[in-house]
Formats: sequence, C-alpha cells, structure tokens
Amino acid sequence: MSELFGGVLAAGPVAESVGDGAWVQAMLDFEAALARASAAAGVVPVAAADEIEKHCRAEEYDAGALGAAAVRIGNPAGPLVRALTARVGPAAAAYVHLGATSQDVLDTAAMLVTARALAALRDDLVACAEMLARSAEEHADTVLAGRSLLQQAPPVTFGLTAAGWLGGVVAALRQLDRVRDHRLAVQFGGAVGTAAALGEHGVPVFTELARRLRLAEPTLPWHTERSRIAEIAGALGQTCGAVAKIARDVTLLAQTEVAEVAEQGPPGSGGSSTMPHKRNPVAAVLAAGAAAQAPGLVATVLSSAAHEYQRAAGSWHAEWRPLVELLRSTGSAVHWLRVCLSRLHIDPARMRANLAGSGGVLVAEHVAVEVVSASEGAVGRQQAGDLVAACCAEAVRGDLAELLAADPVIGKYLDRKRIDELLEPSGYLGAANDFRLRALAEWGGMTR
Amino acid sequence: MSELFGGVLAAGPVAESVGDGAWVQAMLDFEAALARASAAAGVVPVAAADEIEKHCRAEEYDAGALGAAAVRIGNPAGPLVRALTARVGPAAAAYVHLGATSQDVLDTAAMLVTARALAALRDDLVACAEMLARSAEEHADTVLAGRSLLQQAPPVTFGLTAAGWLGGVVAALRQLDRVRDHRLAVQFGGAVGTAAALGEHGVPVFTELARRLRLAEPTLPWHTERSRIAEIAGALGQTCGAVAKIARDVTLLAQTEVAEVAEQGPPGSGGSSTMPHKRNPVAAVLAAGAAAQAPGLVATVLSSAAHEYQRAAGSWHAEWRPLVELLRSTGSAVHWLRVCLSRLHIDPARMRANLAGSGGVLVAEHVAVEVVSASEGAVGRQQAGDLVAACCAEAVRGDLAELLAADPVIGKYLDRKRIDELLEPSGYLGAANDFRLRALAEWGGMTR
Amino acid sequence: MSELFGGVLAAGPVAESVGDGAWVQAMLDFEAALARASAAAGVVPVAAADEIEKHCRAEEYDAGALGAAAVRIGNPAGPLVRALTARVGPAAAAYVHLGATSQDVLDTAAMLVTARALAALRDDLVACAEMLARSAEEHADTVLAGRSLLQQAPPVTFGLTAAGWLGGVVAALRQLDRVRDHRLAVQFGGAVGTAAALGEHGVPVFTELARRLRLAEPTLPWHTERSRIAEIAGALGQTCGAVAKIARDVTLLAQTEVAEVAEQGPPGSGGSSTMPHKRNPVAAVLAAGAAAQAPGLVATVLSSAAHEYQRAAGSWHAEWRPLVELLRSTGSAVHWLRVCLSRLHIDPARMRANLAGSGGVLVAEHVAVEVVSASEGAVGRQQAGDLVAACCAEAVRGDLAELLAADPVIGKYLDRKRIDELLEPSGYLGAANDFRLRALAEWGGMTR
Amino acid sequence: MSELFGGVLAAGPVAESVGDGAWVQAMLDFEAALARASAAAGVVPVAAADEIEKHCRAEEYDAGALGAAAVRIGNPAGPLVRALTARVGPAAAAYVHLGATSQDVLDTAAMLVTARALAALRDDLVACAEMLARSAEEHADTVLAGRSLLQQAPPVTFGLTAAGWLGGVVAALRQLDRVRDHRLAVQFGGAVGTAAALGEHGVPVFTELARRLRLAEPTLPWHTERSRIAEIAGALGQTCGAVAKIARDVTLLAQTEVAEVAEQGPPGSGGSSTMPHKRNPVAAVLAAGAAAQAPGLVATVLSSAAHEYQRAAGSWHAEWRPLVELLRSTGSAVHWLRVCLSRLHIDPARMRANLAGSGGVLVAEHVAVEVVSASEGAVGRQQAGDLVAACCAEAVRGDLAELLAADPVIGKYLDRKRIDELLEPSGYLGAANDFRLRALAEWGGMTR
Repeated sequence: MSELFGGVLAAGPVAESVGDGAWVQAMLDFEAALARASAAAGVVPVAAADEIEKHCRAEEYDAGALGAAAVRIGNPAGPLVRALTARVGPAAAAYVHLGATSQDVLDTAAMLVTARALAALRDDLVACAEMLARSAEEHADTVLAGRSLLQQAPPVTFGLTAAGWLGGVVAALRQLDRVRDHRLAVQFGGAVGTAAALGEHGVPVFTELARRLRLAEPTLPWHTERSRIAEIAGALGQTCGAVAKIARDVTLLAQTEVAEVAEQGPPGSGGSSTMPHKRNPVAAVLAAGAAAQAPGLVATVLSSAAHEYQRAAGSWHAEWRPLVELLRSTGSAVHWLRVCLSRLHIDPARMRANLAGSGGVLVAEHVAVEVVSASEGAVGRQQAGDLVAACCAEAVRGDLAELLAADPVIGKYLDRKRIDELLEPSGYLGAANDFRLRALAEWGGMTR
Repeated sequence: MSELFGGVLAAGPVAESVGDGAWVQAMLDFEAALARASAAAGVVPVAAADEIEKHCRAEEYDAGALGAAAVRIGNPAGPLVRALTARVGPAAAAYVHLGATSQDVLDTAAMLVTARALAALRDDLVACAEMLARSAEEHADTVLAGRSLLQQAPPVTFGLTAAGWLGGVVAALRQLDRVRDHRLAVQFGGAVGTAAALGEHGVPVFTELARRLRLAEPTLPWHTERSRIAEIAGALGQTCGAVAKIARDVTLLAQTEVAEVAEQGPPGSGGSSTMPHKRNPVAAVLAAGAAAQAPGLVATVLSSAAHEYQRAAGSWHAEWRPLVELLRSTGSAVHWLRVCLSRLHIDPARMRANLAGSGGVLVAEHVAVEVVSASEGAVGRQQAGDLVAACCAEAVRGDLAELLAADPVIGKYLDRKRIDELLEPSGYLGAANDFRLRALAEWGGMTR
Repeated sequence: MSELFGGVLAAGPVAESVGDGAWVQAMLDFEAALARASAAAGVVPVAAADEIEKHCRAEEYDAGALGAAAVRIGNPAGPLVRALTARVGPAAAAYVHLGATSQDVLDTAAMLVTARALAALRDDLVACAEMLARSAEEHADTVLAGRSLLQQAPPVTFGLTAAGWLGGVVAALRQLDRVRDHRLAVQFGGAVGTAAALGEHGVPVFTELARRLRLAEPTLPWHTERSRIAEIAGALGQTCGAVAKIARDVTLLAQTEVAEVAEQGPPGSGGSSTMPHKRNPVAAVLAAGAAAQAPGLVATVLSSAAHEYQRAAGSWHAEWRPLVELLRSTGSAVHWLRVCLSRLHIDPARMRANLAGSGGVLVAEHVAVEVVSASEGAVGRQQAGDLVAACCAEAVRGDLAELLAADPVIGKYLDRKRIDELLEPSGYLGAANDFRLRALAEWGGMTR
Repeated sequence: MSELFGGVLAAGPVAESVGDGAWVQAMLDFEAALARASAAAGVVPVAAADEIEKHCRAEEYDAGALGAAAVRIGNPAGPLVRALTARVGPAAAAYVHLGATSQDVLDTAAMLVTARALAALRDDLVACAEMLARSAEEHADTVLAGRSLLQQAPPVTFGLTAAGWLGGVVAALRQLDRVRDHRLAVQFGGAVGTAAALGEHGVPVFTELARRLRLAEPTLPWHTERSRIAEIAGALGQTCGAVAKIARDVTLLAQTEVAEVAEQGPPGSGGSSTMPHKRNPVAAVLAAGAAAQAPGLVATVLSSAAHEYQRAAGSWHAEWRPLVELLRSTGSAVHWLRVCLSRLHIDPARMRANLAGSGGVLVAEHVAVEVVSASEGAVGRQQAGDLVAACCAEAVRGDLAELLAADPVIGKYLDRKRIDELLEPSGYLGAANDFRLRALAEWGGMTR
C-alpha cells in the first residue's frame, strides 16, 4: 500500500495484518504445520519436521526477492518453498512442501491472513458497537426529528437512532463470526486435489493440518470451489454497508444547517486550508470513502468464481488483489468509524430546536389518531386525516395548535390543552423505546 | 421481463414467482396479516379485519393501473392501499394499512416474494445436487486427466469432479437456507420506525405480524439497515458462482477437441443455423450467461447500503430492480444448470483416451515418489524429481516407461513392470475416492 | 419490464424503444437490409429481396412465440428467421438470412435498438440541458452558500451551480453522440466472421448493409471483439453519473433544514401516506435510484469481454440483459431528472438567509486577502489568515465585522465600512460569473 | 503495492509511474506551475515563483511523513503544501498554493499521473499491436478451425484471428488517446470553484496553468463533475477487455488437447512444482487475472459520481484507490499480454491437424452453397442444406466426401473431384483475407 495514501486509505490495525510480512509468515505456518502433520502421519521424519519448522519464521525471508522470483511461475509460494528448502539441512530438504502445491500454500495462507485480519477488524467493530450501545442508553429521551427522503418527519430519539446503527454493526459481526468459525478452511490437495503424492496418507494429513492451524477442515479440497472466498467477501461487503449507513447519517447530521452532531477531533483535524472556521466530519468522510470500495471488490471476487477444472487459468490470480483490498478497505472503514464515533458530540438542544422549527406538523398525525379514538369512531380515520392535513397546510400562515382547536370537528373532541399535549414530540414516539431496548438486549446477548 | 428474451434469460420457476402478480399478492398478504395482527391486539375490530382480508386477493387488482399510479409517490404500495381501501366497506376503510407506511408493505412483500422464489430455486438446485450425487456415485472409477491452467495434469476421477461440483451446490444451499430461516424478516414501523400511530400496541402487532407471515421477527424495524438485502444478494451471488464453475467446466469438457461430455438435448436444441453438425452445450452456455449477471447486481445492492436517516432518498428505490433481477437471473442460471445436467452424456472411453495421449507424463510423479521410497531415501526427492523430469522431457521422442527403466538410478530401484504399474493413472489417485465419499456423505447429511 | 414497477423504474420514452416490438423490428430491419444489400451485389434476385422486405414488419410476428422457441438454440434470432422464411414465398425462401448467422442479426439489432434508444434519451437529456442553461442564465446573481463536505463554505451563485450541472450533462451528450456516430456498427460475418457463404461478395454486402442501416461499417466483424458494447455502456454509465450528481444536490438542497429548492409537482406527487405536510423531491429520488443501477450493469458488460474464439460460450448471452437494462435505467434516470428540473422551484431568499446564518465567516477569507494587499505585504498571508481565523473563532460570541474592525492589525488597514463591504457575499464570487458564461458558451456551441 | 505480490500483479512500467514518488512530484508540478502562472498574471512576484519552483522536487519530501500527516485533514495535499511553505524563504511563503485548495492539487496531480501512466501503458500496448500485426501478416494462409461456443466451426486463418485481436487493441488505443488528448484537464477553482481568492485573475491563471502543465483547459472547475474520471476508467476498462479476450483465446489455444499455440518463456517460467512436464501459459494467465480487476474498479469509480455540492463528503476520497488500482492493473494486464505475445509459438501443422480431425464437416456448408449454384436454383438452399446435413450426420460412420458424392441430388451436380475441392478448408475462407487486410490497413493508418 502506498505510504502517501495509506494513512488515509488503509488506516487501522487490519492494514498491518494483511501486509507482506503477514503473508510470508502465513505461508510458512502452512509449511511448518504440513511438516508436523506429515510427521504425525509417519510420512516425514520428526527430525525433518523439527528442522523445517525452525526455518518457518518470516524474518528469515525477503519479501521483495520472493516477489521478484514469483514472476516465473506466477505466484510467490514457489519461490518461498525453494528458499525454505535451501535453508533446511539436506536431510530435511526432501520433506519440505511434501505432497503440496503452490495453491495449497497460498490458499491456506489467505485463510490465516483473513483470520488474523478479522480479529483486528473485530476489535474495532466491537469498539464501535460499544460506543453505539452507550449512545443508545444515554439518549433514550433525546428527541429529534425523524427524516424521510431528507424531509423532516415524525420524531424519533437519538437513542433509537444509535440502536438502529448498532443493529447494522451487530448483523455485520454475526456474519463475520460465522465466516470465521465455519468458512476459513485449510486448503490441501496437491496438484489436482487428490493429494496423490501422499498415497493413503492424504486424508489424515489433511485433517491434522486443519487442526494444527485452527482452521476448519473442509469436506474436500476447494481449489476451484470458491464459495469460501465469496462468503468472506460478502461479509466484508455487508460490514462496509453498515459503516456507510452510519457515516452518511453522521455527515448529514453534521451539516451546517442541521448541526445536531459534530466531530470534535484533535486540533488540526477536520480543518481546511481555506476555511479555518469549518469543522469537517473528516473521520466520517473517510469511513464513507473506504466503505465505498467494497461493492466493486465483492463483484470482482464473485466474477472470478468460474475456476476451470482442477486449477483455474486466471481466476485464482484474480482473487488475491480484491481479497487483500477488501480486508484493508473494510479495516480502514471500520477504523475511521471508530474514530468518528469516539469524536462524536451530540447536541440535544439543537435537535429539539430543529424539531420545533416545523411547528408541530410532524406530529399532527397524533391529533388525527386521537380524534378517531375520542370520537369513538364517529370521525373516521380518513376524515380525521384530511382535517388535520388541511390545518397543517394552513399552518404556514399561523399557529397549528390554534388552527386545530378552531376546527369545528377536531375542536368538538379535543380541547386546546389536549391538542398541545398531542403536539409534544416526546409524546408521539410509539415503540421507540421498546425497539431501543430490544437492540440493546440483542447486543448484550452477544457480549455475554 | 421481455417475452422475446424471457424464455432464455428468465427460465425456470423462479421467474413466475417474482412477477407482478406475486408482488401484488405479497403486498396484500402484508395488509391482511396486519389487519389480523391488529385485531389480535384489539386495535382493529375483527369484522374489519375479516373484510380487509376478503379483498386481499391479487386477482382483484390491476398491476398496470397500480404501476401507472405509482409514479406520483414513487412506489406501488400507496396506490394498492388506496385501491384496497376503496374496495372494503366504509366501516373497514379506516383500518386498512393502520400504522403502516409504504415501505413496510414493500419491504415485507420483498421478503415474501424472496421466500417464495427461494423455494422454487431450491427445488431446481436440489435436483442439480441429486444428479451430481448420482454422477459422483456412478463414476467412482471413471479416470480422466486432471487439468491445471487448462493443461493436462495428474489424473482424477469423474466421480471426484462431480463431487467437487456438488460441494459448491451444497455450500450455496446452506447459505440460501440460512438466509431463508434467519434473515427474511417482517418490516413494520410506520413513517420513522416507531410505529407511533399504534401507541403502545406497536411491538405486539410487530410480533404477531411476523408470526402470521412466517417471517423472522427482527429486533427493530430495518427501513435503513439493509443487511438483510445484502445477505440475500450475497447468497444468490454465491449460488451463481457455483453454477458458473460447473457450466464453465461443462463447456470445456464438451469442446470438440476434448469431447469428454456432451449435452444431448431434444432434437433442435444446441443446433446452429449454419453448422448442422454442431452439438452446442446450449444449456451450459445459458447457465453461464445467466450466472454472469450476479456480480454486478450484488454490487448494485451493496452500493445502495447507505440509506439516509429513517428513510432513504433513492437507495431504497435502487434496490428493487437488482433484487428482482438477481432472483430471476439466479433462477435462470440454476434452471439451465438443471437442464444441462439432465442432458449430460459422459464418455469414459474418451476420457481415458485423452489421458493416454499424454503417454504417462501426467503420472510420472508417481515414479519419483516411489524411487525415493524404494531407495529408502538414498535418492532424495529433488534428485528423483529431476531424473523423472528429464525422462519426461525426452519422452516427446520416445516411450516414457522405456526411458524411465533405462535410467540407471531409476532402473536400479524399479523394474519395467513396476514402472508400468506406476504409470497406470488409476493407481495414482491418492485420496480421490475418500474425498468423493466425504462429499457424498455431506450431501447425505443434508437430505436426511 | 414489470408493469407494477415499470412506471417508476422504466419511465420515459427509452423504455418503449427497447421493448420486444423494437427488437423484433430491428432484427427484421437487418434481414430486409441484408436481402437488399445482397440483391445489390447480385447474390439475391431483386424479386426475392422485395418479397423478403415485404414481410419484415414486426406486427406480423409474435414475440412470445419467438421467445418460447428461442430456448432450443439459445437466442430469438433463429426462430425469427424460420418464421420469416415460412412467410415468404418458396422462391424467396432460399434467400432469407443468406450468409448470416444469428449473432449477425442480434448484434446488428442491438445497434439499431441502441441508436433509437439514444435518440429518445437525447431528447430528454437536451431538455434537461436547456432547463439548466436557463437557470444558469437567470440566476447569475442568486447567491448561496457553497458547501464542502456538507459544511457551508464561501459563496457561489445558483447560476454557477446550474452551469456546473450543465457541464456534466454536456459531457454526457458528447460521449453519447460520439458513440452513436462512430461505434454503432453493423455486424455481419456468418458463422466465424469470414462470410464464407457469400464467397467473394462478403465485403460488398457488408459495406452496403452498413450504408442501408445507417450504421458505421466496422473494419471487420466484431463477434468477439466487444469494445463497442463496452463504450456504449461507458457512455450510459457516465450519463447516469451526471444525473446522480444533480439528483443528489437537489435532494440535499430540498432538505427541510436547507429548503433552497423544492419540487413542485402536480397534486399528489411527492406526498406521503403518513405525512401530508411533506413535499418529497420524488422525481430527484427516482432519478437517483435509477442512476444507481448503472455501475453494476457497466461492470457486468465489462466482465463479459472475454468472448472465446470466433463466438463466445456464454459471454455474448450475458450482454443482452445489462445492455437493455442500462438503456432502460439511464432512460428512466434522465426522464426523472427532466421531470425534477421542470418542477424545480428555486428560493433565492432562503439561499441568502441560510448564507447570512453564518454571520460572515464564510467570506472572512476575503478580509485576509485584502489586509495583505492593503498593507502592501507588511502583513503576510499566513499572519492575515491567522488573525482573521481568530476573529472567526470569537464570532460565535459576537459580531464578526466588529471583531475584525477591533483587531489592531486588521483595523489599521481596513475601516469598518470596508470590512462590511468585504463581508458581503456577492463581492466574493471570484470567477463565478466567468465560469458560468463559459459553460453557457460551450452549450451554445453544441446547439448551434 | 505489496512487494510480495507486486511482481505478478503490478508488472510493467505503469506501476512505477503511479507510485508515491510520482504522486508527490505531480503535486509539486502543480504548485510550481501555479506559482508561475500566478506570476504571469502579476499575482505573485517572479522571485517568489522562482523560489517555489526550486523546491518542487519530490526528492526533498518524505512520502511516509506526508502520508502520516494526511490523516488530520484527510488528504496528503495539505501536508505537502505545509512542507513546501516551510521550505521556501519567508518572502515566498505567502505565495505558495495561492488561491488553491487541496483538491486542486490532488485532482491535477491525478491527471498528470494518469498522463504519464498512459504514456507507459501505450508503449506496451503499441508493442502488442505490432506483434499482432506481424502475426496477421505472416499467417495469412495459416488455416485453423474456427470455433463457436467452443465447438469447431468453419475454418478461419490465424492471420484473421490475430487481426481480430489487433482490432480490439486498436479500439483501446483510440479510446486511451482520446481521453489523453481531451479529458486530462487541469483542476483549479479554490474552495468552491470560484477561485475567489484570486479576484479577477482567476480565469487567466486557470488558462496559463493548463498550458504549462500540458493538460486540457476545462470550461469550468470540475471538483464535483467527475465525468473525466469516469472516462479514464471506461477507457482502461475497455483496454482490459481487449486483453482479456486475447488472453482467454491464448489459454484455450494452448490447452493440451488443442496445442495450437504455446508460450515459450525462459527456463523456469510456466513450470509447476509438481508437474515438470507442463508448459503453463503463465503470461496469458496473469494477463487474464489482471484484466479481471477492471470491471469492479470501473464500477467503484462510477458509483462515486454523486459528489455533493461544491466538494464531496466521501466520494472524492473513494476515487483515489480505484483510479490507481485501475492504472496499475491495466498496466500489468497489458504488460503480461506483451510478454505472452513475445513468447507465443504458433503451430500451423497442429492447426491443420485439428481441423482435419473433423473430416470435412466444418466446410460441408460449402458443398450446399455450390449445389444451389450448380443446379441454378433447382435445388433450393433449404433442400441443399438438409441433404448435406444428412451426409454429415452419417459421416460419423464413413467418409464425408464419399457420402456426398453418393447422394443422388448432390452427385447430380458435383462430381467427387469437385466435392474434394469444396471440402478443402483453405477454399472456404470467404472474406477472411479481405478483413485481415482491412485490419492491417487500419493499424497502418494509426501508425503513420
């Protein structure tokens, strides 16, 4: 990743976990575990496995040299195997990579790298969830305008808003955890997925390899059955969707004209060279920019599904970049969301002021509901709605409560005091609190 | 869908299940269930619910007229609610759609439509799995060349190939079932997700609505938390990936120069106006073409994740087309795969002939393995490999077995008879059979 | 297209031009022109060409029946050729479709359909450009806040804003026109692109066919060289991008809290069943939703580029749906934009009021620039900026002009009256008017 | 870019031209040209411009440090401007970046980086075109089977095949050149696109800046009108499509069972650790893998079109990664194609042998055409086709020429000698040579 853009586009701990060093180590982890598993099966002498494992440390290898050598066969696993073979003593050399093929190494490494990246991603995502849960708890009574198609609508609470955001994060965590637990699987099958070079030892080595690497044991090698990659991509795409939704809302709520939230970063952050007075929601903006990478990357992964025969002629190579970029971009998106939420200042007073600006029309529906009920059905829902709508239309030139009270039908069932009560936004929140509590309970259930 | 292209691009039973009639009925199912759920909560008189339910039959409504009226507010749910309200007696009119908003209707309808489409899709997908399982059973001993980067490689069996294809189908079924069971959820929350018009009855109606429609009950309304749509899309995208892989392999195996499989369709299918002798694998080709629609559609769904505030200004409307197209294209892909597999003629003799064409070099590795073992390590893996490779390189101008036997080192440990045995492809299949049986057992486990 | 969703998702004249009837007619246009071109080359008797042309009217054919028959060979051209052959007398039958293959018919039809759809699209797009040009002319002096990252920034004019929107539309028109003029090309080459069945007459028929259909004559058949489809897709994708930008701005400007523009549609449009007071920018929302379809569809087209050999095994079939959907969605996006712009009410007073809300900080930069100049460099740019920024920071608790005048350095060079002048937004518009006029001149140049 | 994967995924000269150093230099080129253009307009003293230009050398700056500082405001242009300001003497400091905003710097830098990357890309692409043209010239008479849906079809020449490949490369070059000449434009407009800080000097500086940087001068600033980025992306996507098509064909032609071409790389390339006898078409495979990156990246760029107001809240940041990745991946795809073509061994003998394998049925159509003609229409096209098709169907069990001659109707008009002539593939190539020559002439026209 570019150093110039990396701070912005590859923020957070995931970036490190998908770097060259991580890949080299993951490939070596495969080779070490293969040697051990083969030793357990009696195919490789224990001493040779010891020797091999000893040299499976990324520090001993030069990623640049491996990368340069990779052009000959088209992947870096081959050069690494050669380098490892050269490093171990002659007695062990014959047992390096025994029965395996380059794709076994790289696919398993991809799974290990993904597992480690997801662990880093999860930390940031859980931190986001915790901040959202706290907001959902603290802002149970913070009323603000709901908004539909960017138009003000009946009121909600900021607690419910945060609970809704939390819901998206929780759904993403569920998917990521499911993928981690069930779909990150070892790859092993040799040239064509029969592990023929191991004779009858193929399956035992396969099983032991998975156990040692703490990866799932697949039913059979999946060199050209790429649903695992598709599911990883899907879970990351969904995670970016959850981030994108929250980031969009934050940038909208932070608009100068809305100003219900603000990012309060350290001095210098969010500033502008030409506009010193501005306080840009820079973390939300960067989260949005990073999250926007996902759909195209997911499409690239899905487009590469048709791996030919036992080993693909291009589609496998096509997966590496989008998988790494997807992990990195999702990591950056979640990290910037975490930064954004940690900086987020909520302004309940401004929320109430914006709501008041609409002069009651947002909750006028409440009056209609009550007229139907107070008239015991004598005034139908349609009629009540029409009467209230007419008052709302008039209210541009006058006070809504007054207009409602002056309406002969409405006034017959509701007095001015009751109308004022009905027009109080905090009285028209329906199940907002129930839903908020359900979301918190769901999150609580995940963390127990 | 176009009638001209529909037979080809929207084949199979899913197309019908996502048509206009299905959508109208699904929206009406929501309204009927809402009336019933509200009656159960005491918010709506039972007689009104009866009356409403009576008119919730798609045949009573004209999709074209609803569609034309939809342009005013931007969705067809509003016009349908008006039409339903006009149809029920005046006593019930006030209770139609009570507490709901257009998105509640359409989102829930989308879930019902998806549930029904997935049921149809599943039938076709299970039929594919059964045919693949049968092939995996029948072709345990049908040996053919493995192929890597489209080059011949050590042998596999067609049973293992079919088992690998089956693995992709099983993984897709798993995802689709998970989505169906856990992610197809009712939508209900009114204008801003508080169900405010129902006062304290919001949650009970929410719960009962889900129960009646046999959809999952979400923690809270998900008007702008679209992970469900993303997961549906992901599962369909993965399904198309599984189809694409199999279809690609079939078209490759059916090549004139390979000819190991052929689609044997009814007279006239797969013909060409200019080339009467051709037998095009038309079903595989159409399956591939349909499956190729998925990645872009998944990307469109994922790109639409950032729904603003409580109700999106465009992203919601952006989901309808890709969701329907994805169901339809996946349905078509799976259907054509089913047709393809039902027509598939396997030619074991040609498989063996193609394998023989390589004159043993594909399994020469077997000789290298054996030399190491027979020499008790005196000949190392590297040396053995080099010796065999040299013979392979020579074999262009001679018989490989002879060359191997003539090699002083190899010949020291292996006689000609043993070499011939080692060069027999069926003797170098490693764990092919084990893996094949594991895949069959996995499928068996799903169908029990 | 669905009737239920079509009014919303497939609005405007393009939808009709890509329907089944249009495709059947376009395929028949190919057959008629081929017969005529072949007659001109002496390959087909003139009487036969007359007879063939006579039956090349879409009304004579049943799209549904053609579509149903299409499943056998995988495309509807074959059945249409058969139907046409059955219709012409026996003398002409032998000359129908002479030397052509199904893909010649369908690819050429796709070009003709695209040409006609682009003509319809262009009408709507030009109408948009004209409305934008009018706004750019009328609002030369309508000042409003510029906005950066959704934060208020130095002022612009609505005329410049409209000119910027116009720029995107003009760029889209340029691309569409270029594609229409140079890239919509006839397809003709028979089974493998050699037009072998026509012997030495291949090229003359090819040339004449292009001339008659008013399509470009390509260098050679392009059955598997799909850059034309990619360029059509790219131009449509770009067009949707231009729409998306404008639609996003309109929905933002129409926000309750901004309210600088509003869609004033016919009664009932933009309303909400639950919120009668709302005036949703429904046309902008639908334009945004339609425009969002493009990126995924473009990706699908581009993903299908690798057509095998002389005729693809799936990638060709994969193009039909995205090409039609892209034309239809772009048509709908542009149509809704046209509706949106025709409804657009601009509120200059509200624009000025929103700008005033910032109390001058948006143009404070102007004071800094002037201090540097008035001090003849004694106060550097950095120092001036810092001084002004400090006043802006203070201005939350006071009047900015007063604070600036009270600053010893600033006050030394600028008096209060000059400061007030400098803080007038309309005085700090830089080249806004020049740029506005340049955009109008560019548009004027296109329409001359 | 990763060192480990970079050799494979970011091959060729483009990678270097989009690296950090190139970006820093391009940003500095902007600052230097701005200072010069402002001096020309009299806004900046010439001495200050000299001083600024002196420090506009990338070697003086540390990309890593700039990247780290970028996180505060969200882009690396701000830190670079600060670093440059710190470097120049105090007299010049006030004139650095005068009137510009970060996006002016980065957008213009993106255009310069793209211009330089396209130059590098063009070299590789022209080299590919030259090799293809040479093949098209040399293989005018090299006959091979055409193939349709991967089934053998009437014959073509390898010269025509290469000409068709060339056509795709030429179309890509046309698009890239058009974009380079007309769409790579300077960006300059300050905070909101009015260049307000320059007062009346905005447009002159704008014009001079474009001239100095040899970029197009746009009508107005395009901070939120992103059609240029969309067109760059589209042209690169199209280029990858051209590569993908050729790479797919090469991998297919190189199949063991087809073997009509082979990549003959340096020792060790295309080998496999487990299969020493294999000669993998590794360059074609890597070209295909790289080209497959484009569709998703293009979609990401197009998805980011809706830049809000005067400056986007995320969509701008979302463009950087896909633009760079698209340049890099296209560069790698084209580079590997160049390598592939330079290694390509053509085997005319094998081509003819594969064609002969079909026993004449591929050109049987020729007999049908001739019967119609020889009978002067007494035998109709349909009848002739049916007769020939029947013989083809029989030919599985016998000699086609014999069967045709034995047919009473065919035999009446054509004797055995004539039938043998008609079944000679090289006699049934139609306009293959004409089309081949036209493609060469088109290419010749581009290089004159």
